[in-house]
Amino acid sequence: MTLTLLGLLGTGLVDPRSAVVHADDPGLTRGDGCFEGCRVRTDGSGRSQVDKLDAHLARMRRSASALQLPFDADEWRVLVDKALAACVTPGEWAMKLLLTRGPAGGTPVGLLTVSALPAEYPRQRRDGIAVATLDRGTAADAFARAPWLLGGVKALSYAVNMAAQREAVRRGAEDVIFVSADGFVLEAPTSSVVWAVGRALFTTPLDGTGILGGTTQQLLFERAAAAGWRTEAARARVADLFAADSLWLVGSVRGPVDVVRIDGVVRARDTARTAEVRTLCGFGRQ
Amino acid sequence: MTLTLLGLLGTGLVDPRSAVVHADDPGLTRGDGCFEGCRVRTDGSGRSQVDKLDAHLARMRRSASALQLPFDADEWRVLVDKALAACVTPGEWAMKLLLTRGPAGGTPVGLLTVSALPAEYPRQRRDGIAVATLDRGTAADAFARAPWLLGGVKALSYAVNMAAQREAVRRGAEDVIFVSADGFVLEAPTSSVVWAVGRALFTTPLDGTGILGGTTQQLLFERAAAAGWRTEAARARVADLFAADSLWLVGSVRGPVDVVRIDGVVRARDTARTAEVRTLCGFGRQ
Repeated sequence: MTLTLLGLLGTGLVDPRSAVVHADDPGLTRGDGCFEGCRVRTDGSGRSQVDKLDAHLARMRRSASALQLPFDADEWRVLVDKALAACVTPGEWAMKLLLTRGPAGGTPVGLLTVSALPAEYPRQRRDGIAVATLDRGTAADAFARAPWLLGGVKALSYAVNMAAQREAVRRGAEDVIFVSADGFVLEAPTSSVVWAVGRALFTTPLDGTGILGGTTQQLLFERAAAAGWRTEAARARVADLFAADSLWLVGSVRGPVDVVRIDGVVRARDTARTAEVRTLCGFGRQ
Repeated sequence: MTLTLLGLLGTGLVDPRSAVVHADDPGLTRGDGCFEGCRVRTDGSGRSQVDKLDAHLARMRRSASALQLPFDADEWRVLVDKALAACVTPGEWAMKLLLTRGPAGGTPVGLLTVSALPAEYPRQRRDGIAVATLDRGTAADAFARAPWLLGGVKALSYAVNMAAQREAVRRGAEDVIFVSADGFVLEAPTSSVVWAVGRALFTTPLDGTGILGGTTQQLLFERAAAAGWRTEAARARVADLFAADSLWLVGSVRGPVDVVRIDGVVRARDTARTAEVRTLCGFGRQ
């Protein structure tokens, strides 16, 4: 499977089969760069739009700043517009924006890719997902006074996140909920953890935990608050997730997916509440 | 500054100006791959050799295995031999071996690069280096039962290591000694920590700490033991580093460098002991 579209910041779209990164770019050799993943929707007449681009560019600016990389949102908007204009086949697409430090003596490199949704997403959205809980090794306040640990930075250094997802598969699950060394719920490798008790929505607090603030979780909480839900950032333990009425992993491209099993134990689903949350997140009915 | 040499596993040497990595390779997008950094020496007649290649390939095999990536040492040796044959300008060189998961639907990608030594290495070898101690966020036993945290795996996810070195510069130092959340000495972002008390050499234990076993530290300990030193893996605190007779950061390309300042406090140097350690590590006199 090759990319559908490939863009270079400052250049425009190029052949999606091209190799574009140099072997001495610290984005590759050190995972020293940052990224965003966004959902693109293309309607029946071939017009494309990207979900909450402002929020993604704002977060990428914060990531770049933490890594001491330059970031020009307007330049990125030009590249995104070119990609959207070329994205004409109706459906959903995954768009990534990547910023690397660039090869030795060079300048930072910005890349945009558009590709098909992962094949498992439609099933996971419909049937929910089984997760394993895994220790992240850090205490829930480890990041509070340690900016070099890059808490909240979406860096190109996800090897542990990918290894954790492989461990989940080994345990008969498909995804992970990371737990702090002192037993508090953190996040999933590529999504936020959100749970509901009655008409209250909860997620992990940012400060000190090092988790990434989710753009879809934030959109959900804004819209849910406007719709009369109570919303709260709360420290929770795995037992609280079992006790919750609903539990979702919430990401920008996959949207919210029901967690139907934790460490092999089945959780009840509430399909009406999940449908409501999906709508609030900007995703349609399954 | 461009690369001196560039090689592709299974192909051979290519134009060192080539971009060779695809924008959807998880080695780039997720830091999902592994690497080694080795020293190459080229003598006056243009013959090159690489230091302790067996140890580097053995460690890379372990890294690849932890990431569920295939690894064929013989194939790497073919590529290394081609690079050594083409490396004819007398001096020292930095050789990197990189293995990425490869683009979606593709196969893993192996890369070899040869480049000049970092400009600061000769000065650091001669004058020593100032370090800052920084909290790594994990307890000294955090990795013991959590293989998904990739302790001891040299993955392409070094963003925290690079951010820590930038923090060190902000603090008036040049490198970092990471300390566990519970106050034990770990490692430097790209080297091992070794200290001496009398005729005893110490370094951080591997189990549970998550540190990378250093190939140069291991060579040093083997040769030092044969030369009558006592060698030991020991849990230590920063106060123990101040109390030690000598303290070095030990890496494959830079070799051992004296730590002459910790968090702004000057340490005494013992140039005779450092010269002995340099020789044991396979590095000449400064």
